[in-house]
Amino acid sequence: MVTYMKRLVVLGSTGSIGTQTLEIVREHKEELKVTALAVDSNIEALERQVREFLPNLVCVYREEKAKQLKDRIKDLPVKVVSGMEGLLECATQAEADMVVTAMVGMIGIRPTIEAINAGKNIALANKETLVTAGHIIMPLIKEKKVELLPVDSEHCAIFQALNGEDKKKASKILLTASGGPFRGRKLHELKDILAKDALKHPNWVMGQKITIDSATLVNKGLEVMEAAWLFDMSLDSIQVVVHPQSIIHSMVEYVDGSVLAQLGLPDMKLPIQYAIFYPERKPMEKGEGLNFARLKQLTFEEPDMDTFYGLKLAYEAGRIGGSMPTVFNAANEWAVAEFLKGKIGFLDIPALISEAMKQHQVIQKPDLKDILNTEQQTYDFVRGITESGYEPSTA
Amino acid sequence: MVTYMKRLVVLGSTGSIGTQTLEIVREHKEELKVTALAVDSNIEALERQVREFLPNLVCVYREEKAKQLKDRIKDLPVKVVSGMEGLLECATQAEADMVVTAMVGMIGIRPTIEAINAGKNIALANKETLVTAGHIIMPLIKEKKVELLPVDSEHCAIFQALNGEDKKKASKILLTASGGPFRGRKLHELKDILAKDALKHPNWVMGQKITIDSATLVNKGLEVMEAAWLFDMSLDSIQVVVHPQSIIHSMVEYVDGSVLAQLGLPDMKLPIQYAIFYPERKPMEKGEGLNFARLKQLTFEEPDMDTFYGLKLAYEAGRIGGSMPTVFNAANEWAVAEFLKGKIGFLDIPALISEAMKQHQVIQKPDLKDILNTEQQTYDFVRGITESGYEPSTA
Repeated sequence: MVTYMKRLVVLGSTGSIGTQTLEIVREHKEELKVTALAVDSNIEALERQVREFLPNLVCVYREEKAKQLKDRIKDLPVKVVSGMEGLLECATQAEADMVVTAMVGMIGIRPTIEAINAGKNIALANKETLVTAGHIIMPLIKEKKVELLPVDSEHCAIFQALNGEDKKKASKILLTASGGPFRGRKLHELKDILAKDALKHPNWVMGQKITIDSATLVNKGLEVMEAAWLFDMSLDSIQVVVHPQSIIHSMVEYVDGSVLAQLGLPDMKLPIQYAIFYPERKPMEKGEGLNFARLKQLTFEEPDMDTFYGLKLAYEAGRIGGSMPTVFNAANEWAVAEFLKGKIGFLDIPALISEAMKQHQVIQKPDLKDILNTEQQTYDFVRGITESGYEPSTA
Repeated sequence: MVTYMKRLVVLGSTGSIGTQTLEIVREHKEELKVTALAVDSNIEALERQVREFLPNLVCVYREEKAKQLKDRIKDLPVKVVSGMEGLLECATQAEADMVVTAMVGMIGIRPTIEAINAGKNIALANKETLVTAGHIIMPLIKEKKVELLPVDSEHCAIFQALNGEDKKKASKILLTASGGPFRGRKLHELKDILAKDALKHPNWVMGQKITIDSATLVNKGLEVMEAAWLFDMSLDSIQVVVHPQSIIHSMVEYVDGSVLAQLGLPDMKLPIQYAIFYPERKPMEKGEGLNFARLKQLTFEEPDMDTFYGLKLAYEAGRIGGSMPTVFNAANEWAVAEFLKGKIGFLDIPALISEAMKQHQVIQKPDLKDILNTEQQTYDFVRGITESGYEPSTA
């Protein structure tokens, strides 16, 4: 039997999703081939990946690091590129079938757009892309007739719950949330939270930025906006359900009251593998699957949007639309970075998002330049506040 | 817009499933038309149904009752028939599109076979059909290219969880069970159970026979055997999970560890409506759907097959196959009837099934005649035991 090799580009290959993607490639060597890898600056990890997976193209976003890598792997027949130009070269590489967009931040938007333009299927692990540019991406996906597969346990669950169904009969998305490490606490109990506390997620091992976003529920807010684009649903049809065990990864309710849910152990490899091989399901290496008798119980709560009001702000930003989700996202990105450095408090994160949203003049249907300008303006605005000795307004 | 009318035959129209089927017809008058109704003997209820739904054919199985009905509705242009011949006339009625088989017991097998032979789609609410004659029905369904839609919350859930998926990638069916009113009790606590206790099902309002079967877990055993036929899975791939809230109606696990589940309030109207309109989902009248925050928790346990060993016997009967499931079913049918009359104890139900199975000489691939003979022989055997002053062997 001749097996067709699927050729993958992995953008953000040394991050959490990137390395798990490569684990899957390692487990399916007969069917998957990595043709390009891209990273921000971690050339030590990248070098190991290059030596194992032998792509013929790699991009290191930071030019000086790219030069160092070039020197280190000059024994290999690999082209090394850098900067946004290099990233776009990877995203549009002629021999690739699918681009896994696993970089963090809005830097993912342009490569994703160009990959779609080049007819590549997209395994989307970069939330910012749809949150800020959904109105550009979704029509382009349709026009270019490529597949857009979400690599996120929640969106993958929704995708599976919609599979084989008439999407017009879906009445509600029930997006589950673990509630993060501070579930149940009230505002005054969150004032003195430090980064090291917030980095302890109860169920998932993930990158730092997304772990903080899970603690603030901002991540859930981004997911709500992303789901609205991906599944063409209004924000009011997307309901967040707190489910601390993270076993039900999300659900879809239909007009007849029937609810379809996807369940599994909290493991990102499942949605990554699902996206790569869709529509085929491949056996998962190791693991014994869900044992319901051992699980004993699954619980549910309403999200506390007064305490975790980043989620409320996300709904607000999504409803306003246009450039507002970009403001929400950029303000959060900046604030989380400052929080991780210990420069601002936990509650300053939603407070800064709120301030940034208040001062913003919305641009309807922003083009890519508008989006990137809005991002920069938001960074500048939030930096201005924090540098002038910002005091949390809500604690 | 011209809407195509779907024409239904309802066999067992005055029972629980039958009356709910007619409620759905009442709610979708523009799209559904009842063309034939059949009952055992309840002509009072049938007369009301005939006057409301105006079928042109009705069958009353008991001839003397059929005559009485004929007299009562002589003002209407309705043909009244009786006996098995009458039942078959309904099942094969030329103008019908779909036959809802909602009669209780093995009497449902022949009409189902003839309906399939006549090219009718089947909404199957009669468990005995597949349990005893799955090896006849399933190949016939394929040959005649008709649809077989399960009307049972569990099988409908599995059907939905498989929808749009590659069935070969399903590795396990997780069939949920409420556990019935005696969940958690041990053998010695079940000795003195009376029919009135066993008739109190915690979640579902159903007919008496199925309610007792739920209390003994024999119903779950029949469902396991039925699921094996419907979804072409081995009995060892079907696992019963006790889930007392009856919100998750069943699940399917795939080779990648992903589990798809269907959830809903315990209401038989959903699976009936789903079967009638499949593949289209229709909005459900009234009801506000699942509220997860209000549900709070879903719990899971392993079934206690030592106490509720009717379930264990079902697996055994299913694994042996041939005519053994008929013995299991017929012995249970007889025992439940005796229990409802107060003539035997609760624990005598599985004990009698076990005795009947022990004495049976299995017929491989029984034809319809073999099945009906086996049924009669089992009745005779079990009657013989109970009439000779049977003492429960296990209490």
